[in-house]
Amino acid sequence: MAKRADILKRFGQRVRELRKEQGYSQEGFAYECELDRTYIGGIERGERNVALKNIERIAETLGITVAELMDGV
Amino acid sequence: MAKRADILKRFGQRVRELRKEQGYSQEGFAYECELDRTYIGGIERGERNVALKNIERIAETLGITVAELMDGV
Repeated sequence: MAKRADILKRFGQRVRELRKEQGYSQEGFAYECELDRTYIGGIERGERNVALKNIERIAETLGITVAELMDGV
Repeated sequence: MAKRADILKRFGQRVRELRKEQGYSQEGFAYECELDRTYIGGIERGERNVALKNIERIAETLGITVAELMDGV
């Protein structure tokens, strides 16, 4: 049975998908989040075990709730 | 205007509420999560900036999705 991708990967894919839907470049999105572009890159590649404060910051930048951000994650 | 409680507090309250609903003591819940009881205590008091892997572990122990865990947070 194929293992479900781990939560870091699923979260990263979700962030990438929503960011692109909203027309942000990785750099522009990082700027709006007040996070480093390389950190956003690491999140999207599933390399970062992102914690609540930054999860909230990402959701706020996207204009959605944390629960919406986690939909399908 | 009253400031909305910060996300660590809101998450902690949500975890406490769901844990109690399911009849877990803090100790029993920590055991099921394979996390330390003092760490769960810190989460519930809003002192811990919990990251994705432990958020997932808590959701799995509660038998809900991460999005459900984040509902209202």
